Amino acid sequence: MPNPATAETLELNPETIRHLRQASTASVATLLFKRGYHNAYIQGVLPLSGAAATMVGPAYTLRYIPTRPDTDPLDAFREPDHPQRVAVEQCPEGAVLVMDCRQDASAASAGSILLTRCQVRGVAGVVSDGGIRDAAGAAALDMPVFAAKPSAPTNLTKHHAVDIGLPIACGGVAVYPGDILLGDGDGVMVIPRHLADEIALETVEMELFEAFVLDQVTGGASIRGLYPPTNPKTLTLYDEWKANRDA
Amino acid sequence: MPNPATAETLELNPETIRHLRQASTASVATLLFKRGYHNAYIQGVLPLSGAAATMVGPAYTLRYIPTRPDTDPLDAFREPDHPQRVAVEQCPEGAVLVMDCRQDASAASAGSILLTRCQVRGVAGVVSDGGIRDAAGAAALDMPVFAAKPSAPTNLTKHHAVDIGLPIACGGVAVYPGDILLGDGDGVMVIPRHLADEIALETVEMELFEAFVLDQVTGGASIRGLYPPTNPKTLTLYDEWKANRDA
Amino acid sequence: MPNPATAETLELNPETIRHLRQASTASVATLLFKRGYHNAYIQGVLPLSGAAATMVGPAYTLRYIPTRPDTDPLDAFREPDHPQRVAVEQCPEGAVLVMDCRQDASAASAGSILLTRCQVRGVAGVVSDGGIRDAAGAAALDMPVFAAKPSAPTNLTKHHAVDIGLPIACGGVAVYPGDILLGDGDGVMVIPRHLADEIALETVEMELFEAFVLDQVTGGASIRGLYPPTNPKTLTLYDEWKANRDA
Amino acid sequence: MPNPATAETLELNPETIRHLRQASTASVATLLFKRGYHNAYIQGVLPLSGAAATMVGPAYTLRYIPTRPDTDPLDAFREPDHPQRVAVEQCPEGAVLVMDCRQDASAASAGSILLTRCQVRGVAGVVSDGGIRDAAGAAALDMPVFAAKPSAPTNLTKHHAVDIGLPIACGGVAVYPGDILLGDGDGVMVIPRHLADEIALETVEMELFEAFVLDQVTGGASIRGLYPPTNPKTLTLYDEWKANRDA
Amino acid sequence: MPNPATAETLELNPETIRHLRQASTASVATLLFKRGYHNAYIQGVLPLSGAAATMVGPAYTLRYIPTRPDTDPLDAFREPDHPQRVAVEQCPEGAVLVMDCRQDASAASAGSILLTRCQVRGVAGVVSDGGIRDAAGAAALDMPVFAAKPSAPTNLTKHHAVDIGLPIACGGVAVYPGDILLGDGDGVMVIPRHLADEIALETVEMELFEAFVLDQVTGGASIRGLYPPTNPKTLTLYDEWKANRDA
Amino acid sequence: MPNPATAETLELNPETIRHLRQASTASVATLLFKRGYHNAYIQGVLPLSGAAATMVGPAYTLRYIPTRPDTDPLDAFREPDHPQRVAVEQCPEGAVLVMDCRQDASAASAGSILLTRCQVRGVAGVVSDGGIRDAAGAAALDMPVFAAKPSAPTNLTKHHAVDIGLPIACGGVAVYPGDILLGDGDGVMVIPRHLADEIALETVEMELFEAFVLDQVTGGASIRGLYPPTNPKTLTLYDEWKANRDA
Repeated sequence: MPNPATAETLELNPETIRHLRQASTASVATLLFKRGYHNAYIQGVLPLSGAAATMVGPAYTLRYIPTRPDTDPLDAFREPDHPQRVAVEQCPEGAVLVMDCRQDASAASAGSILLTRCQVRGVAGVVSDGGIRDAAGAAALDMPVFAAKPSAPTNLTKHHAVDIGLPIACGGVAVYPGDILLGDGDGVMVIPRHLADEIALETVEMELFEAFVLDQVTGGASIRGLYPPTNPKTLTLYDEWKANRDA
Repeated sequence: MPNPATAETLELNPETIRHLRQASTASVATLLFKRGYHNAYIQGVLPLSGAAATMVGPAYTLRYIPTRPDTDPLDAFREPDHPQRVAVEQCPEGAVLVMDCRQDASAASAGSILLTRCQVRGVAGVVSDGGIRDAAGAAALDMPVFAAKPSAPTNLTKHHAVDIGLPIACGGVAVYPGDILLGDGDGVMVIPRHLADEIALETVEMELFEAFVLDQVTGGASIRGLYPPTNPKTLTLYDEWKANRDA
Repeated sequence: MPNPATAETLELNPETIRHLRQASTASVATLLFKRGYHNAYIQGVLPLSGAAATMVGPAYTLRYIPTRPDTDPLDAFREPDHPQRVAVEQCPEGAVLVMDCRQDASAASAGSILLTRCQVRGVAGVVSDGGIRDAAGAAALDMPVFAAKPSAPTNLTKHHAVDIGLPIACGGVAVYPGDILLGDGDGVMVIPRHLADEIALETVEMELFEAFVLDQVTGGASIRGLYPPTNPKTLTLYDEWKANRDA
Repeated sequence: MPNPATAETLELNPETIRHLRQASTASVATLLFKRGYHNAYIQGVLPLSGAAATMVGPAYTLRYIPTRPDTDPLDAFREPDHPQRVAVEQCPEGAVLVMDCRQDASAASAGSILLTRCQVRGVAGVVSDGGIRDAAGAAALDMPVFAAKPSAPTNLTKHHAVDIGLPIACGGVAVYPGDILLGDGDGVMVIPRHLADEIALETVEMELFEAFVLDQVTGGASIRGLYPPTNPKTLTLYDEWKANRDA
Repeated sequence: MPNPATAETLELNPETIRHLRQASTASVATLLFKRGYHNAYIQGVLPLSGAAATMVGPAYTLRYIPTRPDTDPLDAFREPDHPQRVAVEQCPEGAVLVMDCRQDASAASAGSILLTRCQVRGVAGVVSDGGIRDAAGAAALDMPVFAAKPSAPTNLTKHHAVDIGLPIACGGVAVYPGDILLGDGDGVMVIPRHLADEIALETVEMELFEAFVLDQVTGGASIRGLYPPTNPKTLTLYDEWKANRDA
Repeated sequence: MPNPATAETLELNPETIRHLRQASTASVATLLFKRGYHNAYIQGVLPLSGAAATMVGPAYTLRYIPTRPDTDPLDAFREPDHPQRVAVEQCPEGAVLVMDCRQDASAASAGSILLTRCQVRGVAGVVSDGGIRDAAGAAALDMPVFAAKPSAPTNLTKHHAVDIGLPIACGGVAVYPGDILLGDGDGVMVIPRHLADEIALETVEMELFEAFVLDQVTGGASIRGLYPPTNPKTLTLYDEWKANRDA
């Protein structure tokens, strides 16, 4: 059994990220379900921007606990190693910053300035099960941001950043550093690192088949025997469709 | 007292659907309230597409209960008479497919392929108090889709389709097969079948009067005596407005 | 200690409203937090229109309690001094109508006709922690409307308007008549009247500094030492930036 | 239509309180339902003591809104006319103190010292949809206390007492001063003042009939024809049962 | 794969009920988890009586949907085949009446008279994810009653009994007629009918081993190597303990 | 500013624990509120046993995140360093084991065997914002157990024990290892370690004064001028009362 706590060290097939970029969270949810992963969708989190691009990358985790006066004075952010600020400056290029806010969106976990810094640094996306302030600014970034909702209060109100790089909960799901996150208009799926290669590979055929099915259905076909393809003719048709498509 | 369980057999005035197409859920809510129907709005359900067209049609019901391993194996959808797939293929043209997901949107109740099939078959719309996967695809259809929110997990995760054509709960409201559903930007109202004709008829005058009121208010009129029209002059003005409008 | 119940009589600096118009709720949340106000954000309320303009104005309060048959007959709105209708006709120009719906959005607290009347009368905006019916119409107004969500049922279903001008709760926050409300894409903040001048003034510099920071970050600067400006060079850079900007 | 806002002035039949003392909330709920009152049960509120005596009396209302630093300083209770303290000293003998805490039990609305003072003064009971601190002490009183749950935090944390004697919401139900409250192991019902006499009277026969039914059922009778008494023999049996009982 | 919809016809080993009577829901939860049943605990439902006896029996299901005026007139219960009354008279001796109230406890699903009738008829217990009225009376029965909480309102307020003997949801779990229910102080587990025999048998050894472990722990043993018994000596000790116990 | 993360190393006055044993959570909540700690009450957690003794001790923390198949196989507990089992064996005598279950009580975080082991080892109490299985057994222990509610499912269903000794959230409150926890019938308060001595000391006088007030109120005194003691005579009376008490 791979130890998720060291998931970051598992090597990924270089094509995995590329495969997942063309995949949907819906397909990945099905592939994870087939392997017994029934709780891999980050609940209560959607893209801030209606037209979000697909987000893919390994998880870089930041954990918050509730604030209190001794740990969250007014000048908390002046501390050079405040974990939230460290996370924003150190989340690796291509990684996804994932924040555990205990599903409490009554205050923000970040705002557009920090998110802009993430984008400039090449971060692949940000996921929070808390709120985001200046959400309009965040939604306008090229980098996808997934969160519970806009929320104006400073994170000092509710969220004390306590550590980086530990396994966390986000939206009711376990996220280990190095797990691969995939986000689109339906939200965010967490792919355990050791499954990422095989799932990424399977999505390629799966997305192609779904495109074929949608084509057939748009053309008037019944889903009976087509989806799933219990009728052997379906697979023949599919082969023809692929051949035509590649021609 | 009409038996709602056989509501489907009640004949509708052919104009009822046409009348409701120009009506708003707000007006229907008021007309139902006046008849003692205080719980006819499907709570927690909005159109996936911001600019949803009005949806009207008789209810065709599908009931889900929670899944479990023996009833929801990985190949559940290969079964030819899986109720969800049957519903998608048999929901009558012009009817609305209504799904009881126990207000649980942590998994999907349908996705864009099945919804496209519904659209191709002439289904008037789909209502679910659960989630919808590939919600962006669903929102892009011409057929209105009303649901709790986008949700990537396959319905095998939470929702076992158990039967078709029974009275169900949807968003905290009873829905009997054959009840007339009206949906717009404010969500969905359930009109008991035996009241549909009279309510549809009343909306015609009601929408006209509201258009008149909005005209007056936009022009600077106070709502006092105008809305509701306790001032007799209001009704005179209204008659003139209608005469001008028809001229 | 100023008595919030008489907040309306506190005089405002004429520039306060103007200053707040360029401010964000995020900045005001931080300034209130610094003064010990940790619960000033109206929870669960967002603008109906995605592209809402900033809303600023003193609160004019309307309180609802649950309905019941003896207090909410079908012709309730015919009563000339129904508090909701009085509020719509008497909310002062430039003020914000704030409605306490006990965070219950299962029915509407107002609809587009009443909201249009508010706009015509010069009301600065409307805030409700309940629902809004004909929400599409409301979202299309020039006047910002903040609410929990669209909701078709008439307020007779749930919300009995009981009095005007009392301190209320809205979205879990105390609102006293005369408190200054600021709304934008992140929702609505409540500024106690006696703090409005000083907070408004501070936002001017704060928004300017945030614009500078965003500029730097967009240009590739690290947030370390910049935000907050613990590095003395930051303030020098800021002065130059301001000088260039004004040049 | 009686004006609930002046309900306190409606005279009660002297026997009404006595009749209700032998009644159950279940019976009163049914009698109110029959008159169209579908929302008269204070949701989320139960007796602190498992073996609570029946509570009956007219409502004396106290309203809380959220606290904030300017209205709730540390010495708030030193103010001689703090509404909570006034309520405890002025709630009439035989009346029920009802507190509107917006269904927020994360802090207390009262503790055992104030509740003991209420008991000494002859208050008939206390109802709160918030928390109670020193709940064990409160549960040990002879006076029934109904609340959401024990909660240690002082009410300064969440609940600012703002006024007395206004119509309020409690547990999702409208309560007008002078309405008659009935509490038992199932919670609390709110009887509109103008209906109290007739409902109280009807409970006498209703409770007697239920005692008869329970007797029959315990003795082996089917509920068919008995409950409700659709079989004419049931009423004959009932008359005999009453005759025996009175003999 | 057994078809749960016909679970009632599966024969049970005559000892299964007897075995389960000495079992705990905790043990059954573990045994079901091991077979992939992760959602078999009826959420939000506890015994009304603190000292509830263990409940065991096959499920007899009753489904409610929301009420409305046409289906739930004041004299609804006079109808001889009202499903709730039929259920109370026909639930087999030794079976458990399970009611699907959509986890809505704002109104009752039954009261002490109907529950007394169930007890007299030999029903093994009653489970509801809604409320129970006259809960004190219900808690005093010998028959265990599991529900969300006491609730005074008549079921006409919220719960329309619609059918009997169908698969239902209760507390977020699927319940098929004939599934075996086990209830104790921790709540209620649903055992799929086809697994009942083997699970019941396994609990015998499991409860014995847990008694041994508790004995050891009470006597000062560490749980290391004992629970689970990874130390081989544990099993030797266990054999001795059993031998002594049987001596 | 003391660093809460090293709170465990702060020395406590030897009398602090003794002082707190006679204190109530209500008093401590007030004393913390006065110091700006508005969020120190563990929400949603009460003693399993109605007649719980007061619990006092320093926090020893255990953190759970959601389970998943790779991290929570069926034999997870066979692993010798499973954090939950380590915690049960290593929580120091006199300390309180506090578990962060993300306020999810749909599964257990511990059961009566592990809790018995804690009691035998001299643990001062256990606090969990999740469920407890075999709650009847747990409630019968001498050691106080505070939790959300009984819950039969094994923690493998929802709660993966991930680490020990880190700052956690419990019931919406930050808990640092070494913070002092106080529990009674009203639930649990978290006292930051560096404040424990001074707060413990203040409770001595506070509880004494409250006992005096309760005595006066029971004897018929008004709370005006007494509670708080704004009337100078109150303090004279109090001195006399103390003198008599000590005599």
